[in-house]
Amino acid sequence: MRVEIMTTGEEVLSGQIVDSNAAWISQILSDQGLETARCYTIGDRLEELTEVMDQRAREADLIIVNGGLGPTDDDFSAQAAARALGEPLVEFSEWVEALRHKFTRSGRELTARNLKQAMLPRSATMLDNPRGTACGFVIRLHRAWLYFTPGPPNEMRKMMRDEVMPHLRAHADLPPSAFIKKMTCFGLGESRINDLVAEIPLPEGTRLGFRAHFPYTEIKIMGFGDETRARVDQVAEGMRGVLGANLLFEDDQSLAGCIQEAMIDRGLSLALAESCTGGMVAASLVEVPGSSAYFHRGYVTYTNASKVDMIGVPNALIESHGAVSLEVAREMALGAQKHAGTSHAVAISGIAGPDGGTDSKPVGTVAFALAHPQGHHACVMALPNWGRAKIRLGATTIALDMLRRHLLGKPVYPSYDYAKVTRSEDR
Amino acid sequence: MRVEIMTTGEEVLSGQIVDSNAAWISQILSDQGLETARCYTIGDRLEELTEVMDQRAREADLIIVNGGLGPTDDDFSAQAAARALGEPLVEFSEWVEALRHKFTRSGRELTARNLKQAMLPRSATMLDNPRGTACGFVIRLHRAWLYFTPGPPNEMRKMMRDEVMPHLRAHADLPPSAFIKKMTCFGLGESRINDLVAEIPLPEGTRLGFRAHFPYTEIKIMGFGDETRARVDQVAEGMRGVLGANLLFEDDQSLAGCIQEAMIDRGLSLALAESCTGGMVAASLVEVPGSSAYFHRGYVTYTNASKVDMIGVPNALIESHGAVSLEVAREMALGAQKHAGTSHAVAISGIAGPDGGTDSKPVGTVAFALAHPQGHHACVMALPNWGRAKIRLGATTIALDMLRRHLLGKPVYPSYDYAKVTRSEDR
Repeated sequence: MRVEIMTTGEEVLSGQIVDSNAAWISQILSDQGLETARCYTIGDRLEELTEVMDQRAREADLIIVNGGLGPTDDDFSAQAAARALGEPLVEFSEWVEALRHKFTRSGRELTARNLKQAMLPRSATMLDNPRGTACGFVIRLHRAWLYFTPGPPNEMRKMMRDEVMPHLRAHADLPPSAFIKKMTCFGLGESRINDLVAEIPLPEGTRLGFRAHFPYTEIKIMGFGDETRARVDQVAEGMRGVLGANLLFEDDQSLAGCIQEAMIDRGLSLALAESCTGGMVAASLVEVPGSSAYFHRGYVTYTNASKVDMIGVPNALIESHGAVSLEVAREMALGAQKHAGTSHAVAISGIAGPDGGTDSKPVGTVAFALAHPQGHHACVMALPNWGRAKIRLGATTIALDMLRRHLLGKPVYPSYDYAKVTRSEDR
Repeated sequence: MRVEIMTTGEEVLSGQIVDSNAAWISQILSDQGLETARCYTIGDRLEELTEVMDQRAREADLIIVNGGLGPTDDDFSAQAAARALGEPLVEFSEWVEALRHKFTRSGRELTARNLKQAMLPRSATMLDNPRGTACGFVIRLHRAWLYFTPGPPNEMRKMMRDEVMPHLRAHADLPPSAFIKKMTCFGLGESRINDLVAEIPLPEGTRLGFRAHFPYTEIKIMGFGDETRARVDQVAEGMRGVLGANLLFEDDQSLAGCIQEAMIDRGLSLALAESCTGGMVAASLVEVPGSSAYFHRGYVTYTNASKVDMIGVPNALIESHGAVSLEVAREMALGAQKHAGTSHAVAISGIAGPDGGTDSKPVGTVAFALAHPQGHHACVMALPNWGRAKIRLGATTIALDMLRRHLLGKPVYPSYDYAKVTRSEDR
């Protein structure tokens, strides 16, 4: 079965946005054992869209089309499909009703522009989009099934899962679904992961996939066919052994989710004190619904005065050691724990750049501390000068990883491939 | 001049890595006035690569090929080019010498595998790659110039700048560079923007582009040719008129950057009190280097007790009005301003869901407040139930937008297409 992905839109073509939809679609197809043979991006030009659809539908068996379903004048996907089919666009009353309902509910007025989104090629089958105003649709052209999906990633993903894949399974002869085990790790470079993974024998019918997505690397173990389920588990077991504490979580968990589960299970509570990350650690914990059951408060102590004033860091300590130091991070954690009255507190103070670095504390120097009921851990790490955004994201992840390791009884100070602890203190 | 970009590689095709090279190449070409008409990704398959090269070189005038120049068995770009040309691959002694030099310098042994990288189609012109072992090359096939560049981004980027663009300028008749004006707006639906924009006449040689990227919509005004510069300015002026206070910023500014500039210019200072956004507002301000010059601290008051304890919100007020109320948001802002000793403070308290909504305060209800030296503004808004992540991001942007509007002397309470103020108070 030859599979192709067609993305539309000038903003993708002109490089204004990086097309991550094609990669996501390719991955979900690959999970079904379908390998993508070609991807292409076409601009918002009706003739070219029509020509490419007509031409590729003679070669491919399945084409996922993404984008061009919006209400504006440069959204041509339905029109191009109708032309390629030699059919008129007709109004699908089912979607008109759905639009009326959506607009009434949100108190907006339904315009002629939006009604355009209910115009589909006559032979099309509509695909529901509960998250947006663009319905999807599927057509049969030459030898191919063409599925049309909306550009916004959250709408496209839901439609691919709930509409496209079931329709495809019902209408095409798909290979057996894959068993998939995902393992997300942190702190290991790509070549190191490759070396570690090479130690694990890969039984017949199983395959590995990798996806680097800063700051994580995801390893996917896939098995094709019923008989491979146990083999996938066996590879996963080997993987846990070689990855050790660098394995953050499995399948669809998240780092914040794991922490939340462990904190709530043990009746613990958390406060944060953040400087260079400026609220990112708090924000990533609050992302998970239910976080208020253990996360109490955060101190974003961006200035020196606020460190002193909000959580009682001694000014003399800041003057003698600098705001980015093991000593100040330790006092931030202890101060946050004390002021908030929580069982645990995590603190971060670092130099995210681009300015502010010195010879002894270059950009990327970050101090972390973790206060727990029996004492504290504090350390300084040297992160690479990845740039401000990545240093802050890296530091956020390291802080959460320290808390996770502590909760799981693993070594609190990690040894990441790209960032080492240069000093530490445990009391 | 018809421009296309061809990327090769199974890891791009299978979605294991998101292809950002094509977007980068498209941007650098666009800066030269060259609009990319099509992008495609082909797997590491010799026949298909050859076929696509042969076919596209009959349609396009310029094709940038990226990837497939490595030393391994699945790197086919040079071989495919030679087949499409009907030429043999020959050893380019200049690159053999360069490789010998590179390997000697790094103490590695030059293998037959690497010598493969010096084999180019006979009529090719070599392009230097000071950062890697794969040289690039350019060929003339049918009507097109084809430039072959390596996959690693740092090697590709240097080659595009130092080799491809100069060669292209010397051998092709390039159009004048485009003038581009970007305007980012917030709070207007896509179809509303289209209607507003339709009021502005578009002079010859200018074009509009749109890009929705939640929570923003970016409008790009492009002009092609020297004589269009004034026309682009004229369209921009009209755009400012119709967008009004919904125009957030222009070109490469950012919302946090605009706020930072206005705050520092006037010697103002800021504190934050966040509940449902849990540090997101603080984190987005700290994203901009130099933010410490005006942003002092943030209170992430996630629990009711922390609102009372950290910034003195009266407990009775929380009990009578609820934590998500105009009254509590107002006291959070006033409390943060007072405790931090800043000129301004912004506060947010809302219901991000999925749980916690009631009939009178459904998920998406968010209270905002802004304390300034002369008084305060406070309001409650009803956001759509976009889901937790988007409600939090939307609330973050609304809070920053209120501050921006206040600083610029615009109406503080916005009227967004999708979220209305249901109650407000100004003292």
